[in-house]
Amino acid sequence: MTDQRITATPIDPTKLDRLAEVAVKVGLGLRPGQDLLLTAPAIALPLVRRIAAHAYKAGAGIVTPILSDEEMTLARYRHGHDSSFDRAANWLYEGMAKAFSDNTARLAIVGDNPMLLSGEDPSKVARASKANSMAYQPALEKIVNFDINWNIIAYPSPSWAKQVFPNDPEDVAIGKLADAIFAASRVDRDDAMANWASHNAVLRERTNWLNGQQFRALQYSGPGTDLTIGLADGHEWEGGASVSKNGISCNANIPTEEVFTTPHCRRVYGHVVSSKPLSYQGTLIDNIAVRFEDGKIVDAKASRGAEVLNKVLDTDEGARRLGEVALVPHSSPISQSGLLFYNTLFDENAASHIALGQCYSKCFVNGAQLTPQQIAAQGGNQSLIHIDWMIGSAETDIDGIMADGSKVPVFRKGEWAK
Amino acid sequence: MTDQRITATPIDPTKLDRLAEVAVKVGLGLRPGQDLLLTAPAIALPLVRRIAAHAYKAGAGIVTPILSDEEMTLARYRHGHDSSFDRAANWLYEGMAKAFSDNTARLAIVGDNPMLLSGEDPSKVARASKANSMAYQPALEKIVNFDINWNIIAYPSPSWAKQVFPNDPEDVAIGKLADAIFAASRVDRDDAMANWASHNAVLRERTNWLNGQQFRALQYSGPGTDLTIGLADGHEWEGGASVSKNGISCNANIPTEEVFTTPHCRRVYGHVVSSKPLSYQGTLIDNIAVRFEDGKIVDAKASRGAEVLNKVLDTDEGARRLGEVALVPHSSPISQSGLLFYNTLFDENAASHIALGQCYSKCFVNGAQLTPQQIAAQGGNQSLIHIDWMIGSAETDIDGIMADGSKVPVFRKGEWAK
Repeated sequence: MTDQRITATPIDPTKLDRLAEVAVKVGLGLRPGQDLLLTAPAIALPLVRRIAAHAYKAGAGIVTPILSDEEMTLARYRHGHDSSFDRAANWLYEGMAKAFSDNTARLAIVGDNPMLLSGEDPSKVARASKANSMAYQPALEKIVNFDINWNIIAYPSPSWAKQVFPNDPEDVAIGKLADAIFAASRVDRDDAMANWASHNAVLRERTNWLNGQQFRALQYSGPGTDLTIGLADGHEWEGGASVSKNGISCNANIPTEEVFTTPHCRRVYGHVVSSKPLSYQGTLIDNIAVRFEDGKIVDAKASRGAEVLNKVLDTDEGARRLGEVALVPHSSPISQSGLLFYNTLFDENAASHIALGQCYSKCFVNGAQLTPQQIAAQGGNQSLIHIDWMIGSAETDIDGIMADGSKVPVFRKGEWAK
Repeated sequence: MTDQRITATPIDPTKLDRLAEVAVKVGLGLRPGQDLLLTAPAIALPLVRRIAAHAYKAGAGIVTPILSDEEMTLARYRHGHDSSFDRAANWLYEGMAKAFSDNTARLAIVGDNPMLLSGEDPSKVARASKANSMAYQPALEKIVNFDINWNIIAYPSPSWAKQVFPNDPEDVAIGKLADAIFAASRVDRDDAMANWASHNAVLRERTNWLNGQQFRALQYSGPGTDLTIGLADGHEWEGGASVSKNGISCNANIPTEEVFTTPHCRRVYGHVVSSKPLSYQGTLIDNIAVRFEDGKIVDAKASRGAEVLNKVLDTDEGARRLGEVALVPHSSPISQSGLLFYNTLFDENAASHIALGQCYSKCFVNGAQLTPQQIAAQGGNQSLIHIDWMIGSAETDIDGIMADGSKVPVFRKGEWAK
């Protein structure tokens, strides 16, 4: 362990401040008097401070940071009491659920090393993950149901930077990851607020067009791929800004490039290959190739991580079926960066993708009013997992299939056809 | 705001690690499987990490850090929504009380600039302080009643260091404050654990002797001082290690040099002057001179901060009476440092002192079984405040008064007479 203290950094302070402003104003749409709960790695303190400053200037009530630390997490896995891995800090998770019930907004800064736990005892990792998931469930439900406005952004922590740029010295790696985050988050230029307004307008135009088309299915073709994905009955395309149940327009993910909806979990046919590696809990799964029959994956291969992939597919009944289909043009800034971030917040915005597992109720017309049974009847999938993986490339063509079987071009060579 | 990141520091890493070990093993006596809630300034991360490491190595269950930040606090006072100053993050305080009910140990790292809020709107400071106190009350009760093992230690944060050493460059000031904290906390030498064991034994010897004497009063004399402090009926002297209600021996304060008990709040007579300045919520109160009649301060002067002092005395009925009397020899390491730390954890261990306001129930024989009415009848004071101020010096003589009126020397020229 080295000794440490706080001094100058390779992270551009102007852009970091702009990211904080965008997170508060575009990401959260924080209301005067509204409280904010902020989770972050402790190392992200420079961004945490800027977010607090912008939040208070926007009239925030009380901003409460909950900071975690990679070194402390590792110390737990290496020395912590064995019985504690089946427990979680319930008092804290229950408190978070209480805060969200009281209309506290939520901002999460991600930045931990995506491979942090890859060397730890897999059984401890699984036990702690399950205990935390169970404890977090009541709070998480308020997030995924969009009861309150929430947002996720990223901070270029040293350990993550070294994962993305392993051949660079730490300072250089941090600077490069910072620049990549700023560019992807559209805060690398002066007019960030206006840029986000026009970006949201473009995404809204896309979802409006797709919702107007009422496609029954999407047909994908490209090298190694011939896939038809049926869309759920009453599906709705979402993307960019959306309004949470407390009436606030927010951008939950920054960056975001995707428009997405719910596939029909019993109407997917054909075969598809991944176009980028999937980083899953410390394992890299590469060159995935799967075949669907009646919505279910009946065959799955990978050139690397095949064992982990097949274990994931056996999680539960819904793990072999799709819960999300998302369209991202190959010209997306994140795709153009050519980087693998090892973090879904970024990587899912680099290419059109599909997700195994749980669907989103908000991707249905009047989704908030539907029961789980209705959602399942309309083709929505249920599972404990939700894992995005990339299938789009510069070679991808996608057609929308209308009710009468006619085809409308959606993507040509990885770009919007319209 | 400058940009910041983590590098080398003037704080000795070996001693910092030793402080963490002493906090976990001597301060908390953490039990295998026991969870730990750790509050700290975010800037104290190097110490927080070491505490987590020692805690987990000692078999801790889950260590949860709750980190605060001076810049965020100031941003709130300067820009936060006005109505929020009458609220607190109740969900977090309620969660802390819940954690303590579940036998979670508590460790607090102090290190904020003692003058942090001295330039902010006093009415906002008072409103927020009241709201936080009310929200924290259920958790605080479990601490002051010693339901669980708890400990406070200090970290040399830059803003505090600059307050204590205003004429030094920041790095030098941090290094000096670090060394002063390490020396006072008895971790400046290799044999810290053994040193604490013998220090606790010395303090136990003192309390045993004082409890055996059954003094009715203490009589103080020195320049400007002629004071008789009656002791409460059934008072008990405490000091060093004590056993919390969950059966764990812990040292709540590190450093600690005092032995202390409950004065009789209606039996204090004479006059006394302060021997060191009192730092109270950003105001320095110097050269205090008060006169007692039947336990009550009837006249109070100060060469500086007299207005604040008299406002404090008007807080409530009990604010003009004593709730604690504590004996500290002039040769205490903290006294010998000659420093004013502007922090009670240190300054109260530099000299014999008295405290205005609330008494401690644990400083009575069988205190845990006594009702508030019984405590009051035995001479225990009640108040919303508890403010320690220093009256001991190298000139202080103290005699113990026996039931028959005979006198036993306790201190001579600021040192233990026995």
